[in-house]
Amino acid sequence: MQGTRTPTSSPSADAYTPTDRTVPTRSAERASYDRELVHSILDQGYVGHLGFVRDGAPVVLPTLYGRVGERLYVHGSTGSRPLRMTGQADPGLAVCLTVTHVDALVLARSAFHHSINYRSVVVHGIAHDVTDPEEKRAALDALVDHVVPGRAADSRPANKKELAATAVIRLDLDEVSAKLRTGGVNDDPEDLSLPYWAGLVPLRKGYGTPVADGDLSADVRLPDYLTVS
Amino acid sequence: MQGTRTPTSSPSADAYTPTDRTVPTRSAERASYDRELVHSILDQGYVGHLGFVRDGAPVVLPTLYGRVGERLYVHGSTGSRPLRMTGQADPGLAVCLTVTHVDALVLARSAFHHSINYRSVVVHGIAHDVTDPEEKRAALDALVDHVVPGRAADSRPANKKELAATAVIRLDLDEVSAKLRTGGVNDDPEDLSLPYWAGLVPLRKGYGTPVADGDLSADVRLPDYLTVS
Repeated sequence: MQGTRTPTSSPSADAYTPTDRTVPTRSAERASYDRELVHSILDQGYVGHLGFVRDGAPVVLPTLYGRVGERLYVHGSTGSRPLRMTGQADPGLAVCLTVTHVDALVLARSAFHHSINYRSVVVHGIAHDVTDPEEKRAALDALVDHVVPGRAADSRPANKKELAATAVIRLDLDEVSAKLRTGGVNDDPEDLSLPYWAGLVPLRKGYGTPVADGDLSADVRLPDYLTVS
Repeated sequence: MQGTRTPTSSPSADAYTPTDRTVPTRSAERASYDRELVHSILDQGYVGHLGFVRDGAPVVLPTLYGRVGERLYVHGSTGSRPLRMTGQADPGLAVCLTVTHVDALVLARSAFHHSINYRSVVVHGIAHDVTDPEEKRAALDALVDHVVPGRAADSRPANKKELAATAVIRLDLDEVSAKLRTGGVNDDPEDLSLPYWAGLVPLRKGYGTPVADGDLSADVRLPDYLTVS
């Protein structure tokens, strides 16, 4: 519907189109559909929370994931429940994958205005089993590079047996939203003089000191991409 | 069924009873039902991921939570979707709440054995609307103390208007499991001499330097409970 779009509610190459499911009922001003922002939130996360429905009830499991353009990939053993369910479902398994970063604690003078600064992405869609060998291999590279960028090229690639033991599912980035809280404390004006400390407590991020495996050959040095930040 | 329990599969005061939903299909050796371990994982988390079913599809949203004994509480605006749905559902809303900590990246020589060290808790159950004023107030204290222990007593309690604007739901800790990966790299013996760095990369935790609100009275000092760790 490119011809009918208006500037105020335009889907574009740079943004996802809001849907009933991706417009929050509360704090809509914290929602964003910006593609670059969504990608950056996804790319900085280590673990996503994958939701699916089993016997009518919700199940939420933590999972590693990787992104290739507008596709997310989740992998696991061929025996794991959501991956097996995806392979058996036609046309696929309805899922919701959510990634959240907690950036800071927001301590207000009032209990009511306590909050956290966070960035989250919620992806709704249908997960499909990845059967194409090339797509599967690219997805596994993306999963390893997601943990540490550049790492896939600096490790032994999966062999045939490992590929056969691994199931990969794909979730297209289509029905997607980000939600964020940033900024400071929002206390009511009449509370500002209360004798309680108020402010932001940032949470620390980044790598601690790497611990080399005991069997590491003496001539293998710590790679630059693991330098403590 | 105390009389019939056996040492190998005993529910006890110290452990949750495994169910079909809480016994993983994969890596069952990583699962635990230990009550103290479950509590500690829950208490150290900032955000949980709450799953519920809406129009037959899964939804997973990040949420703050608090624990009082064997009860978890989630709060939000009375207008937020899962909280409104809980109030309208009889006898409550089927939910799954999952909390995950990522402790370290596990870099193996083989792409296949890359992993993360994590601790997670998955809680299945029915969420109920909290209507008792005393339980609601205690739940809100627990939510604030969950963000920073001791903080509820060092802030202005919610007033009537704030209490009325806040919905609280309760989820009993009954059908619960923890899952953990700890330890080092699990490379295959034939890969040990490969020229790739292998080991653990711990992720940093704890508080960064607090940033006081600009309107803070000059005589309010940083409380001891925010000392950078």
